[in-house]
Amino acid sequence: MKPKPLGPIPAGYVAKDGQLSIAGMTARELVEQGGATPLFVYSREHLTKRVADLRAAMPERLTINYAIKANPFAELLEHMATLVDGFDIASSGELTIAQMAGLDPATISFAGPGKRDDELEAALRAGVTLNLESENEARRALAIGERIGAIPRMAIRVNPDFELRGSGMKMGGGAKPFGVDQERVPALAKEIIAAGAEWRGLHIFTGSQALSADAIIEAQANVLDLADQLATEIGEPLPKLNMGGGLGIPYFHGDEPIDITAIGAALEERFADLPANLADTDLCIELGRYLVGEAGVYLTEIVDRKVSHGVTYLITDGGLHHQLAASGNFGTVVRRNYPSAIATRFDSEPAEEVNIVGCLCTPLDRLADKAHLPKAEVGDLVVVFCAGAYGATASPSDFLGQGAAREILV
Amino acid sequence: MKPKPLGPIPAGYVAKDGQLSIAGMTARELVEQGGATPLFVYSREHLTKRVADLRAAMPERLTINYAIKANPFAELLEHMATLVDGFDIASSGELTIAQMAGLDPATISFAGPGKRDDELEAALRAGVTLNLESENEARRALAIGERIGAIPRMAIRVNPDFELRGSGMKMGGGAKPFGVDQERVPALAKEIIAAGAEWRGLHIFTGSQALSADAIIEAQANVLDLADQLATEIGEPLPKLNMGGGLGIPYFHGDEPIDITAIGAALEERFADLPANLADTDLCIELGRYLVGEAGVYLTEIVDRKVSHGVTYLITDGGLHHQLAASGNFGTVVRRNYPSAIATRFDSEPAEEVNIVGCLCTPLDRLADKAHLPKAEVGDLVVVFCAGAYGATASPSDFLGQGAAREILV
Repeated sequence: MKPKPLGPIPAGYVAKDGQLSIAGMTARELVEQGGATPLFVYSREHLTKRVADLRAAMPERLTINYAIKANPFAELLEHMATLVDGFDIASSGELTIAQMAGLDPATISFAGPGKRDDELEAALRAGVTLNLESENEARRALAIGERIGAIPRMAIRVNPDFELRGSGMKMGGGAKPFGVDQERVPALAKEIIAAGAEWRGLHIFTGSQALSADAIIEAQANVLDLADQLATEIGEPLPKLNMGGGLGIPYFHGDEPIDITAIGAALEERFADLPANLADTDLCIELGRYLVGEAGVYLTEIVDRKVSHGVTYLITDGGLHHQLAASGNFGTVVRRNYPSAIATRFDSEPAEEVNIVGCLCTPLDRLADKAHLPKAEVGDLVVVFCAGAYGATASPSDFLGQGAAREILV
Repeated sequence: MKPKPLGPIPAGYVAKDGQLSIAGMTARELVEQGGATPLFVYSREHLTKRVADLRAAMPERLTINYAIKANPFAELLEHMATLVDGFDIASSGELTIAQMAGLDPATISFAGPGKRDDELEAALRAGVTLNLESENEARRALAIGERIGAIPRMAIRVNPDFELRGSGMKMGGGAKPFGVDQERVPALAKEIIAAGAEWRGLHIFTGSQALSADAIIEAQANVLDLADQLATEIGEPLPKLNMGGGLGIPYFHGDEPIDITAIGAALEERFADLPANLADTDLCIELGRYLVGEAGVYLTEIVDRKVSHGVTYLITDGGLHHQLAASGNFGTVVRRNYPSAIATRFDSEPAEEVNIVGCLCTPLDRLADKAHLPKAEVGDLVVVFCAGAYGATASPSDFLGQGAAREILV
């Protein structure tokens, strides 16, 4: 069996007493605190440092939104509220989560191509900004606003003709279910302003999970140009411009962290010479995965170690029901290994090649294929890194009656 | 845009007043009964007919188990209990579901490669049969049985050297995380019998989602031969032989229903001439998807209809959070369209080509690509067929704060 490489372990994870440690606690201590495996552990310190590093690299003027969908765990969200300037939600379910966390509705925007009437009404009542995805949605929201006596806060989500090169999502400008094609944006903006909505500006999303600073720099330049052009056509300055996000994190062997210093320097240059339309605009980036992805790990216990036809399997009490993307079944065509390790032998040398699988009765349930790792026994803990974003909530936790994993913020 | 074909609509779905109807109710009436979209509707009549047709085709002696993991919805499970002879569970969560449905533990077997100690204990206390996945698991279960004073009911899950040709899962015999390699089965059987366990026989699983009767016939012949051989080596007859399942359903354009008459005839022939080891054996097939998959549909409402760069999108209030497999993100490499239709225009002629997407902010959220369908408006209902198995519980319902779909049995 030829080993397959594992993804790179994010910075900031060290060994203590031979075990992975987070916030000074060993993996076993973390499981004790969390109560049981499978367990997601999110690091407060990692979150704080990530936002601080980003702020240090970016122009002071740039504001930072957190996209709740990446990780809506209540304690994490409350911590994020101390770090960022605003939030993006994607459903009325996330609105409820945001309200329970006590977030200021004035800092929240709601994007999502299929907002139901009851979701629009809940958002209007709460006073969050709607990032409108279509003319039809705008008209439905205006009618609801009139009915309930609320002045809608409205921005328009733009489907730009350009894309973020090298992003993890489908590339190439063109037809999309998201946003309003850029050439139709001015007419819609005029319509909602004329209807009495509070004009909140534009949301221009170009792609996600890019690791190339050059691609981000190019996309941001295009976004600023397009925003200026659309503001001119609309005939109103932009109160706010959500420039999207797009900053990725390394998941796979060979991936390198994105160079935020280069991105910040390029933005600084652009911000020094902004057109009049954007002079007083709240210029914002919206990030999910980049802020929280590397701050989380998934811990699962080995319940069996077995050999079949000469191949060694470590069978864990976790699996794709909590780690769908890591299993290779969500948005990837070719499965590659996420960064993972034996958490209870974190500073040991690799000694054997193993397949790490979950507890589910399906060959789809793989956490690491042909991994070169220290020899582990039943009772050892496996860690999957990069589990802070799109882990718990982006996986089918009810599959095979397993149920949700536990989550702690430390 | 060149249209892409949709999968074949299963038999038994007809129009009433121009709408899809189930149990005499139109799609709109079903949504009224269910309370809201998104909604899974399961047909009692379809389930009953499916089992009756299967029994009519199979030898009378063959018993039929239902694999709860395919669909654990309580009312459906209670109806299945009136139709089948036994059940398979895959976790202690499913054990709880089975107990709440009042199923007889003596008819339940528990397979799954990563059973935790607390799961083994719950199973032993309940009196269900353990389908052992490894020597280590056998020893853990024996120790637990001794500690709690229970005589374990034990069968062995065999990892056979052969596979089910053309099955939806990974093919080729060889290394597997499931079961015990066939050559190690006799020693383990002798060990657990000597330890005082109640010997329950073998479970030989060869693959799933096959549409070729010849492949099933070949696999079943191999299973019976292997069971006879292993029983001889063990030196004990087999109380029960779970021959696995493997019968698939058509999902995609070009798929044909599997020929159960041919399978039944071949089994009849084999059963007429069984070796002594299998003369008194409970011969069983275990099916999940085949029994319930076509009996369920997923209904979701169109909340927006938009055109982007000349492409028409129907945006629904459902999506991959309930229909992960239909979106092409679960166990498939190339996305193909499931059978789907406009439920409220079920007998109308196709008139346009559209993409049907979900309400999630991700390009992964597709229900039908380039589908040729009757012209639909906001408020129309979309139906995705083959939603009875691995739908609700095999999808990330918490993704983007959406929450679970409703489910009804009619």
